[in-house]
Amino acid sequence: MKKTTLTLALFALTPFSILASGQNPLKVTEKSLPIPVHASQEVQNTLAVLPAPLNSGSVKAIAVPSTDGEWKAHISEFNHPTEVQGRQAAKDLNVKYGVENINGVEIYTLTPANISEKNANNLFLHIHGGAWIYGGNDALLREAVVIAHKLQMPVVSVNYRKAPVHPAPAALNDIITVWNSLLAERQADSIMMGGTSAGGNLTTAATLRMRDLGMPLPAALFIGTPAADVLKNPDSRFVNDGIDALLGTWDGLIEASVELYVGDLDPKSPYLSPVYGDFTGFPPSILVAGTRDLMLSDTILLHRAFRDAGSHADLHIYEAHSHGFYMLPGKDRTNFYAEMNNFSDAYIGRYNDITPTKVTVTFKLEDILLPESK
Amino acid sequence: MKKTTLTLALFALTPFSILASGQNPLKVTEKSLPIPVHASQEVQNTLAVLPAPLNSGSVKAIAVPSTDGEWKAHISEFNHPTEVQGRQAAKDLNVKYGVENINGVEIYTLTPANISEKNANNLFLHIHGGAWIYGGNDALLREAVVIAHKLQMPVVSVNYRKAPVHPAPAALNDIITVWNSLLAERQADSIMMGGTSAGGNLTTAATLRMRDLGMPLPAALFIGTPAADVLKNPDSRFVNDGIDALLGTWDGLIEASVELYVGDLDPKSPYLSPVYGDFTGFPPSILVAGTRDLMLSDTILLHRAFRDAGSHADLHIYEAHSHGFYMLPGKDRTNFYAEMNNFSDAYIGRYNDITPTKVTVTFKLEDILLPESK
Repeated sequence: MKKTTLTLALFALTPFSILASGQNPLKVTEKSLPIPVHASQEVQNTLAVLPAPLNSGSVKAIAVPSTDGEWKAHISEFNHPTEVQGRQAAKDLNVKYGVENINGVEIYTLTPANISEKNANNLFLHIHGGAWIYGGNDALLREAVVIAHKLQMPVVSVNYRKAPVHPAPAALNDIITVWNSLLAERQADSIMMGGTSAGGNLTTAATLRMRDLGMPLPAALFIGTPAADVLKNPDSRFVNDGIDALLGTWDGLIEASVELYVGDLDPKSPYLSPVYGDFTGFPPSILVAGTRDLMLSDTILLHRAFRDAGSHADLHIYEAHSHGFYMLPGKDRTNFYAEMNNFSDAYIGRYNDITPTKVTVTFKLEDILLPESK
Repeated sequence: MKKTTLTLALFALTPFSILASGQNPLKVTEKSLPIPVHASQEVQNTLAVLPAPLNSGSVKAIAVPSTDGEWKAHISEFNHPTEVQGRQAAKDLNVKYGVENINGVEIYTLTPANISEKNANNLFLHIHGGAWIYGGNDALLREAVVIAHKLQMPVVSVNYRKAPVHPAPAALNDIITVWNSLLAERQADSIMMGGTSAGGNLTTAATLRMRDLGMPLPAALFIGTPAADVLKNPDSRFVNDGIDALLGTWDGLIEASVELYVGDLDPKSPYLSPVYGDFTGFPPSILVAGTRDLMLSDTILLHRAFRDAGSHADLHIYEAHSHGFYMLPGKDRTNFYAEMNNFSDAYIGRYNDITPTKVTVTFKLEDILLPESK
């Protein structure tokens, strides 16, 4: 039997200083991942039919647009199927929607067929995802419609300005503008805010901005598989590279989108990368990700940071989910929205028995918006 | 610009039935994992010095013992450094311990230098880890001492019988025997039970058994990176193969240990693989794992199953932690035990203001122990 000294040392968690210098970075050999038997049937079915280009090499092979015109065409092509899905979902789930304008920011207002009595005075402020460049216009309906339907709550979704035409902090300013307008007409405590991916990033960053400004904060946050760091730092960017079936890899398209969004600003600003934020006084939050998710690390890092700052934060991780798989129709989506319902009941339900009183104040826009380049 | 139709289809989560048949299993190419910058300094230091044999190829190269004598020697060699550490931890942290015998089962009783007033009537029942073969005798002190010290609570740790000499269900019977004895002298509600790895498996399985027997249940459970399935089914067994710096891979030594433990029993029995269990009526639980953990999937699957059964369950995941890394001294250990302290306060603290009343009954051992092979 071969000497097992090294394994012994590891299992025993002995002082690592006595070990020989290691393999840094760690080399991981080629491997095969079978269909995960404990994943939901929908995830198993999805993984069974996903085409080969999902591994990182092939995603990397997709050309990154290089001119403004190419980006515009690419974003338009990319958004199209999601827009079709969003409009279809609104029809299927009987959610009515309209488009309005608040202080120059376009918002979608969504009204589900049934608004539960407890949510009569409540509102969900939705921040859509899409790497800060995709997912706007009717494409934002896909998630917003499901939220309105599942929570039986009115939704306002911010069609914030996006890169490459409008880099940061335009999106943040649009969210803050809408927030400020909402405060003029209702109590902050009656609003839950949230979204997925870039929407999770912007939800967290905008709440940091509101906190820093001394504004009243939302009653609760939903933070879905957020990009908490705009740089390729979180460990799951590497561990799940070529494994996340939705995104494949951070390199290439996503990285290019991030660069367009960040522009000349500091990527380590908490308003851009909330993972560097201080979350003192943050509202309660519900976070979700998957084990095959490129943003798994981002999600668990924010969960820890929220809790370490003394806020209530609940973490939900789903087996073999790639980025945003909880939005796939099926068992896991039903399951997660049940959690979200219980969560919203617990944190905005407190105000259901009383008529909301407007104790909030609005701020002058010129005092609260971040400087934008002209 | 290359056609992006496939990515479009994926990002939009279009009906997957229209996609071409995929790569199944998914092939993941060789990759390098840098030191994760968002991991705690201790984890970064640990990963920087870990030796090359940690990747799966080399761990697999460690010979599996083939005779009873070889196993005995291997286990003894494996346990030795942990025993030394456990005794040293008891000395360093000023935790006194003794060894007793309850109905034929050996237990360690641990008393920290300070017992907090709120925990004067409380007890932590510790179930050690070690793949159902390692981790017994003084090796169990390593985790038990830290629990006693951090929670400022007396600990009883069960030195349950282990494979290969005693396959399942001997360990379960020993835990149930101790539980039954504790019920004769104190209220179940004053006891928190838990442990790590195989200890998390046994904690869950034993609680299922108690629930099925109609016994009073612990006030709360601590379930640390459990092996919830004794077969290689959870997805993180594959995704984190060669990445988990503590275990390296499921194949080889661990698989062989599991086979010794399971013996002729059905590996899908919830008493062996709790992932198949129904958790109706389960106590509140706190679960922990890491993103590089071979048992990440097991942990999140149990978290979901507990919540889906209507129990309270809190999930904590740490950046770039391999299996059991939260036991490493440092920031993350301090952080996790702070969570565990708050959790135990919330769920066994309810009884601190009243003198516990023995409302419990004890069962006849012959009625509650599972049949063992002679």
